[in-house]
This record gives sequence, C-alpha cells and structure tokens, in this order.
Amino acid sequence: MTDPRGAGVTVLGLGAMGSALATTLLDAGHAVTVWNRTPARAADLSARGAEAASTIGAAVAAHPLIVACLLDHASVHETLDPVVAGMRGSTLVNLTTTTPNAARELATWAAGHGVRYLDGAIMATPPMIGTPEASILYSGSRDVFDDARPVLDRWATSTYDGADAGLASLFDLAMLSGMYTMFAGFLHGAAMVGSVGVTATEFAERATPFISAMTAGFAHYAHVIDGGDYAAPGQQSLEFTELSHSHIVRASEEQGVNPAPIAAVRELISKQIAEGHGAEGSARLYESLRADHTDHTQTSQETLR
Amino acid sequence: MTDPRGAGVTVLGLGAMGSALATTLLDAGHAVTVWNRTPARAADLSARGAEAASTIGAAVAAHPLIVACLLDHASVHETLDPVVAGMRGSTLVNLTTTTPNAARELATWAAGHGVRYLDGAIMATPPMIGTPEASILYSGSRDVFDDARPVLDRWATSTYDGADAGLASLFDLAMLSGMYTMFAGFLHGAAMVGSVGVTATEFAERATPFISAMTAGFAHYAHVIDGGDYAAPGQQSLEFTELSHSHIVRASEEQGVNPAPIAAVRELISKQIAEGHGAEGSARLYESLRADHTDHTQTSQETLR
Repeated sequence: MTDPRGAGVTVLGLGAMGSALATTLLDAGHAVTVWNRTPARAADLSARGAEAASTIGAAVAAHPLIVACLLDHASVHETLDPVVAGMRGSTLVNLTTTTPNAARELATWAAGHGVRYLDGAIMATPPMIGTPEASILYSGSRDVFDDARPVLDRWATSTYDGADAGLASLFDLAMLSGMYTMFAGFLHGAAMVGSVGVTATEFAERATPFISAMTAGFAHYAHVIDGGDYAAPGQQSLEFTELSHSHIVRASEEQGVNPAPIAAVRELISKQIAEGHGAEGSARLYESLRADHTDHTQTSQETLR
Repeated sequence: MTDPRGAGVTVLGLGAMGSALATTLLDAGHAVTVWNRTPARAADLSARGAEAASTIGAAVAAHPLIVACLLDHASVHETLDPVVAGMRGSTLVNLTTTTPNAARELATWAAGHGVRYLDGAIMATPPMIGTPEASILYSGSRDVFDDARPVLDRWATSTYDGADAGLASLFDLAMLSGMYTMFAGFLHGAAMVGSVGVTATEFAERATPFISAMTAGFAHYAHVIDGGDYAAPGQQSLEFTELSHSHIVRASEEQGVNPAPIAAVRELISKQIAEGHGAEGSARLYESLRADHTDHTQTSQETLR
C-alpha cells in the first residue's frame, strides 16, 4: 500500500462485472493485473493500463491482493486449485456469486492453504460499480476487510457482515428473494389489470408508490416476529389475510390470469390456519418459512427409535 | 344535498370499516342512518348522533344515498334482496370487498332494479379513513361518482377507474397481490438470515430501503412489456435470473428454510427457459402470468379437429 498509485491488485475474471471492478481501480490509479480464461477479454483493459497476465500463476504472483469474479463456485476451484500452493500469505477477496455454504467451503479451503479469505456479494449492476449506490457485502476475515478497505471502497459502499464467510451471500440472497418475489407480484398484478387492457406502464405508475409505501410494513412484521407473540393485538388476522388472498386468486382465474405467485403464498397461510392459527396475526406466516428446529429434532428422535 | 349538514347517508354494516366510514361522516356534519345485522354495534354511533334504523327497510328508505360495507358479496344480496324493490331511484355505493365479477354481477342486479350503482375498493385500514393517505378506488356509474364526490372525499383520496364496475376491485386486488407477494418475500428473506440468528428487525432495517428502491424496476419491466420485445437490450436475461433464483432456493434449503415463495417464481422462469426463451429478458416472466389468448386459440383449434 506504499505504492503511490495505491495498492496493486490482481483481478481474475473479466466478465461485465470483473471488467467494471478492474476499470474502476485503473481509473483510481491502482496497479492492476488482470487474467481471464479467454485472454481476448483483457485487451480493452490493457489499453487502459492494466497488465495482462499470460498465465494464472503469473496473475496470482503479481500482487498480494487477489480479487476473483468468476463464473461460479466451481470456476474458483478450477482456476485456483492448480496455483494455490503459490498463494500462501496472499489475500483472496472472492466476489464470485456463491451460496453461503460455497463461501464457507472456500474460506476453509483458503485457510488450509495459508490464504487470507474475504467473501463478497455484489448488490449492483456493472454500470453502478464505482458509485456509492452500489453496495457490496463482505464476510469472513475482519482483518482482510479492514486492510483492503481502501480498495473495496473504490467500488461501492462496503458493509462487513461478520466472521462466518457465508453471511455476505446469505444477506444478499435474502434481500434478493424479497426483490424477486416482489417483482413476480408486480408482474402478476400487471397481468390482472392487463386482462382488461390496462397497460403495464399505467399499472407501474400506480403500483410503484403504493408498494414502496407498503415496505413500511416490514418493521411491523419484524416487531411481532422478534417479540414471539403472533397473537399480539393490532395485526390483520391470518383468516382475514387468507380471504384477501382467495379474492386475488379467484379474480385472477376469472380474468384468465395465472395466480401462481400469490397462490403459493395462500397455500402457506391456509396450512397455518388448518393447524389452528387462523385468529393469530399474519406475521405467523414466518413460521411456515423459518428453519424448523422442531422438525430436525423429530427426525433425530425418529432415528433413535 | 341542500341539507346544511351535507347529504344524508345510510351506512349498512358496522364492522370496523363501516363504523369508521359512518364516524367520519358524522364528524363532518352529515345526517347518518346506520344499520347492522347485530343492532348492538350501532350503540356507539347512536351516541355520536347517528340514527339507528330498526329494520333494513327503514334504513334504505332513510336517504337516497346508501353505502354498503358488509361481510362479503353474499351478504349484500342477503341484506338487500328483500328490500331492493323499495330502492328504485336510490344510489348504492358498495364498499364491501368483492371480486371484479361479483361487482359486475351487483351492477347488473342494481340496474335491473332501477338502482344507480358504484363499486368501491378501500385501500386503507379503518384508522386511516378520513385522511388523505387512505385511498378508495371506484368504478361503475361515472354520474354516481361525480354526484357522491362530496361524501366520498370525506373518507379518502377518491379515484375513478372506469365504467366497468369490476375495475376498482381488479386494481385493488392487483396492487394487493404485489403487496402480499412482497411481504412473503420479505418473510422468506427474514427466515434465511434468521437461520443464523439475525433478528427480523435487523433484516427489516436493511431490506426496507433496498426493496423500496427496487420498486423503480417496475417501470423498466412495464416498458419492455408494453413494447412487446422481450429481447430488447439492457435486460437481465432469464437464464441469469434463473441462476440467481436457484442460488436463493439452494441457500434456503441448506439453511433449513422453506423456499416456497421464491421456488414458485423459479418454476415459472424455468418453464419459460424450457420453451426456448432463456436469452430473453426477465420481463418475459409476464408471459407466464398474463391472460393467455394464444392458449385459448389452441384449445379452439384442437376442438375443431
């Protein structure tokens, strides 16, 4: 980090995201060595001042800070297993999209080879990299996060989620689940009004402020869930909520629209009601989704018999 | 409307919502007659100045503007069928929660008895009634909407959706589908991070601004849908979107969390990919939901063979 241009960094993987990460560092004056399985991808970055490593071995030897943004978890192993013996003492910041368990596996693998490991989950599109609107979540080594911060902060708003290397991926996927599920709900609503000729644009104009305002409900749900009392007053009951879902499903079917996204939610609610919880608040839906320790216990007991 | 206290109004149904509607009108100085299947519910409103009708016949005869906020569609018929002959020339504003087809049926029924009909869908909780944050959508007779506006605007921000009496319910249910589906996605995300001990409150604090900001994506989806070109550039491909959904599903399962809401969405995406659309943008998911005129045509052709 004594280099006047800032820390040198090796970037592995030059897809749209890897290229954006490397470009942002080059523009900020960092010495950047790049490598890609298909070398042609490095041409643009070389023209901007990057060093294109001819082999993966040369790439990981070029700088003590190695950033990976590869296709998937398997690609990380395929790329680095052959050269990991030469990486002892280096730092690997892995921004490849993974699952929490895949990140944990890589953290253990890295530790076994004397490589410091930080996992990252990018919550941004490539054009957003280099702006504060981009967010990157990190988990794993706190020391690596602190040491690499001058580099990490070039890309995005950086957040450290904890020592469990799987946490960044877990938070990322949890928030993406909310986003993608919401998108499906929006598209279903657009299909409902689309059945009578309303444009998706008109629906978006009306649904955007409404749905955005309704995110305030998350805090209310969270309050009930963390409090642990699903019968706490001031909630909409599961029975009322099921009736509302049934109206949506029926109206969809009558309009010829596929109710699949909302029907999946109604099924979970109906199961809670069948189990006797209809008078409780709708936050109880959480119990249909959460990691069910009771079931695991039952399985263990059954195994013991 | 020459009454110095404003138009007289009959309110049928004194659940939490009906009581809020009647109270708001009383507070604004309207003459209000109330009726409820269980008369005891009228006591509070009588104390505030409402006239409690002893029979449904007396209630509908008290004022030419009759507002119904009953349990469900069947309740409207059960309550009004016996007295509808005496309602000729009256106006019925039906705020009972219904489906679009149920609203259309009531509009036809009302027209057959010489009753002017306006259907309404309340997008608010009872405590919100009387504030501009409450929204009520209306459809059916434009004349009724215009004539009753001084009353309607006491309750909420009033929007007229069109002459098809089912439109208010359709818009309401379409927006609620987006909301409820989003809530399920939030609860699923909370369950994912809850599996490692993160509180729902901490997740809500992080997810609320993120999900709220992501509603900006509705306009992008709508632009592609209305443009009709799912291969238009600048979109995330269905293949990439499916991979992201698969990461969420796998991570959920590995954490012991039920992936049902996001798994239902992935199933629709996978089907689009199986049909050869993987390289198109994720807005194509709309095609899995929309009223499918193509299928109807195919069915007709098959019938002809």
